[in-house]
Amino acid sequence: MKVGFVGFGEVASELSRGLIDEGVNVLTCVDGRSSKTQKLAKQSGAKLCLRNRDVAEEADILISSVTPEMAISVAYELGKLSKGIYVDINNVSPETVKKSLSLVENHKVVDAAIIGSVHKKGHKVQIIASGNSAEDFSKLNDFGFNIKIVGSEIGQASAIKMLRSSYTKGVSMILWETVFAAYKLGLDKEVLNIIAETEGPNFEESAKSRLISSAFHSKRRSEEIIEVKDFLSQINESLMVQSTENIFELIFKRLGKLDERPANYQEIFKLFDLENK
Amino acid sequence: MKVGFVGFGEVASELSRGLIDEGVNVLTCVDGRSSKTQKLAKQSGAKLCLRNRDVAEEADILISSVTPEMAISVAYELGKLSKGIYVDINNVSPETVKKSLSLVENHKVVDAAIIGSVHKKGHKVQIIASGNSAEDFSKLNDFGFNIKIVGSEIGQASAIKMLRSSYTKGVSMILWETVFAAYKLGLDKEVLNIIAETEGPNFEESAKSRLISSAFHSKRRSEEIIEVKDFLSQINESLMVQSTENIFELIFKRLGKLDERPANYQEIFKLFDLENK
Repeated sequence: MKVGFVGFGEVASELSRGLIDEGVNVLTCVDGRSSKTQKLAKQSGAKLCLRNRDVAEEADILISSVTPEMAISVAYELGKLSKGIYVDINNVSPETVKKSLSLVENHKVVDAAIIGSVHKKGHKVQIIASGNSAEDFSKLNDFGFNIKIVGSEIGQASAIKMLRSSYTKGVSMILWETVFAAYKLGLDKEVLNIIAETEGPNFEESAKSRLISSAFHSKRRSEEIIEVKDFLSQINESLMVQSTENIFELIFKRLGKLDERPANYQEIFKLFDLENK
Repeated sequence: MKVGFVGFGEVASELSRGLIDEGVNVLTCVDGRSSKTQKLAKQSGAKLCLRNRDVAEEADILISSVTPEMAISVAYELGKLSKGIYVDINNVSPETVKKSLSLVENHKVVDAAIIGSVHKKGHKVQIIASGNSAEDFSKLNDFGFNIKIVGSEIGQASAIKMLRSSYTKGVSMILWETVFAAYKLGLDKEVLNIIAETEGPNFEESAKSRLISSAFHSKRRSEEIIEVKDFLSQINESLMVQSTENIFELIFKRLGKLDERPANYQEIFKLFDLENK
């Protein structure tokens, strides 16, 4: 079995490392890409093809893992050449994935979405998949992948990812607003402690990590939440998502890009509060 | 030790039942109250005094558990008569509890707040307490109470309760918005399932219960969240709380008062969606 990657950023590099360790042949093409990407690909042990079209023609499973803006143009270029199944694992909306996969001429397509951190979990990260070839794609579970089939239609996996994102980002901003107010009153520890009594033992650690991540990734998250809002607004009024977006923007506006992941949320709140003066 | 209750609604009746079972003397006065309250009090085994002032003068611990609007007037009437410690356990804002307890002339005061459901847990429900006499109040833990001291100042316990309420109600409305959108797409089960993979094993059950409770108690919750918003807005911008309020109001507007707790959230969403047409 040959697995081809179009694009070789963090997702492709983490997933292919796992596959190669399990003895799977991995192909990619890094011609014209940055020296960092070229280095990553060479170190990985993947076979390096001259052109993306060679990857598309040779792979049994072709995984498109490019920047969101590139998803459709890559499908336009390679969709007519793909011989095996074509998996769009890009971080894009259901609408975009429908467009991109409609360009795959053999109609063997999978809408895939990564849930959680590929950085932390490598190729064992949870992947959800929908589409007529999701079952074929899930054969990678024999090589350590953690693919879960969530439906037969293109757009379902991406929709589930968006909805999950609405929940997790919304909870982070509820925490932000609540714990910041508590911090201003000197009651943040007590409030986290009391909520933990009903929310369970992992609550405090998870809450702190959400506060820190929200500040550290505020730029990316405020971009992502706009996509989520656009998607949810087509279905229903989206008041919580709107407030979530506004607070992420405010965090980025006040704190800017942080060089390092802060050690604790109090440090972040201190800065957030100062910037308010 | 004698514990006196002013007001004999659900809170007083549940708490006194536990105390009486543990052999504590309980006093109250139900003169002029509804026949339902009179019956509750008679059944409880509490000693029935003729006047609230008799309760105030005789009790070692006097617990004010009346409707929120009554908290201050009760303190005005009884604060000068209270011989022991005066505990305000009413569901009121930090500002209101400060006003009420400033009327207690011997200055032995406790700001107390119930966390969770006294209906489900009886006198073992979590109670948080702050103020100079919180430690004396916490002696009721010897009789099965679950009092946790959270600070020495009046207003702290009530503030923590408000902040917790901002979190729990906010999370409920995030769930409402997210799971309703998922329901419209036929993906609600999958979305709950995927979120549960990272949120832990109790997530699904707790999410469903939050959705159902939000609809069943939408009137009370939309009233409570206004108090929470007023409190938080004094500290900081409160965008999430504002959206939380708006959705609770929308739920009550569309569903009205439900006679029975619905068995599942799908039933509620169906109705919520229909009322949108």
